[in-house]
Amino acid sequence: MSKGLLVVFSGPSGAGKGTVLGRLLAERQDVRLSVSATTRAPRPGEQDGREYFFLTREEFLARIEQGKMLEYAEYCGNFYGTPADPIERWTAEGDDVILEIEVQGGAQVKKKRPDCVSIFIVPPSLEEQEKRLRGRGTEDEETIRKRVAAARGEISHAPSYDYIVVNDTVEHAVDQINQILAAEKLRFSRCGEIIEGVLNNHAETVC
Amino acid sequence: MSKGLLVVFSGPSGAGKGTVLGRLLAERQDVRLSVSATTRAPRPGEQDGREYFFLTREEFLARIEQGKMLEYAEYCGNFYGTPADPIERWTAEGDDVILEIEVQGGAQVKKKRPDCVSIFIVPPSLEEQEKRLRGRGTEDEETIRKRVAAARGEISHAPSYDYIVVNDTVEHAVDQINQILAAEKLRFSRCGEIIEGVLNNHAETVC
Repeated sequence: MSKGLLVVFSGPSGAGKGTVLGRLLAERQDVRLSVSATTRAPRPGEQDGREYFFLTREEFLARIEQGKMLEYAEYCGNFYGTPADPIERWTAEGDDVILEIEVQGGAQVKKKRPDCVSIFIVPPSLEEQEKRLRGRGTEDEETIRKRVAAARGEISHAPSYDYIVVNDTVEHAVDQINQILAAEKLRFSRCGEIIEGVLNNHAETVC
Repeated sequence: MSKGLLVVFSGPSGAGKGTVLGRLLAERQDVRLSVSATTRAPRPGEQDGREYFFLTREEFLARIEQGKMLEYAEYCGNFYGTPADPIERWTAEGDDVILEIEVQGGAQVKKKRPDCVSIFIVPPSLEEQEKRLRGRGTEDEETIRKRVAAARGEISHAPSYDYIVVNDTVEHAVDQINQILAAEKLRFSRCGEIIEGVLNNHAETVC
């Protein structure tokens, strides 16, 4: 069995990341979503290991110290970060792990795991994104204007990502992500052992 | 419309390159096979621009001089090479162009066109390859032994290719090539202009 991929997945708010990931996870039993760690207290209904791994400040700092956080940031007095161990375990089991993360965190992950695959998802246009934000009905006019401006800034980070997926329809975006994951598994850098197999007459089809 | 890909396609004899390409070309109207140029005389039934572009020695040397050969070699007193112009024209029209080529030629192409996508196709095992060569019934025992030994040498070049495709079944190999071509078109390096489109509110779906 070949190792799963670590996928850094980013995009501006209103790009439809949640919907696309929801569909992808529903379709694929071998794709998992990374779970973040945090020092903030669990809210009612939140389960350790599901919404977050809940850690004490001491535990969190120790993980940083041990190099066991792929990335982290402090926000409003609490730490948030991506623990490396579950990702290591899940990819070793052959599952692809998606890390939905903003661009600064994504850049930290890429430094520690240059073998990751990075995908940046964009709305077909900023106009469309504005429409989607408005469609949610949860934000006021001022907030929407700020978000569209922020999206412009976020999109400027797209060049540091490997792949661009335009979320014109959820189906199309999910198809494209599936194609990216499938192709990446055929990269020589990920399946060089296949060549050994061919030379040694082990009929291998892990790739 | 996005530009087509230049695909360097190599693999040892007996890997089934011909069968896989035949199926791929039959399925895809937007994939073309590159046509080589040669200075050897046309054989009965061969058409200029179909089997080869037939050039005089002077014409061939002039193209080399002008940098219009992506790669070339002299063999038995005749030149053989890959003319750049048709590839340029076809990829500009949006077609993917496959260049079936041995590893030395492939290395020359990669130097001139680092944007090319390179795929190395292998049989599931050398045992299987030997069986395929034998199955053709066109080679004697001695030739088959030499070919299997040569394949071992050719396969050692696989690490310089981007992707490895194991030809366990033709359908599977063609599927994998299709996934590679689809994913490569989503690379930021190939569709960066999409980001411009999003920022400028041109709803683009070329990627």
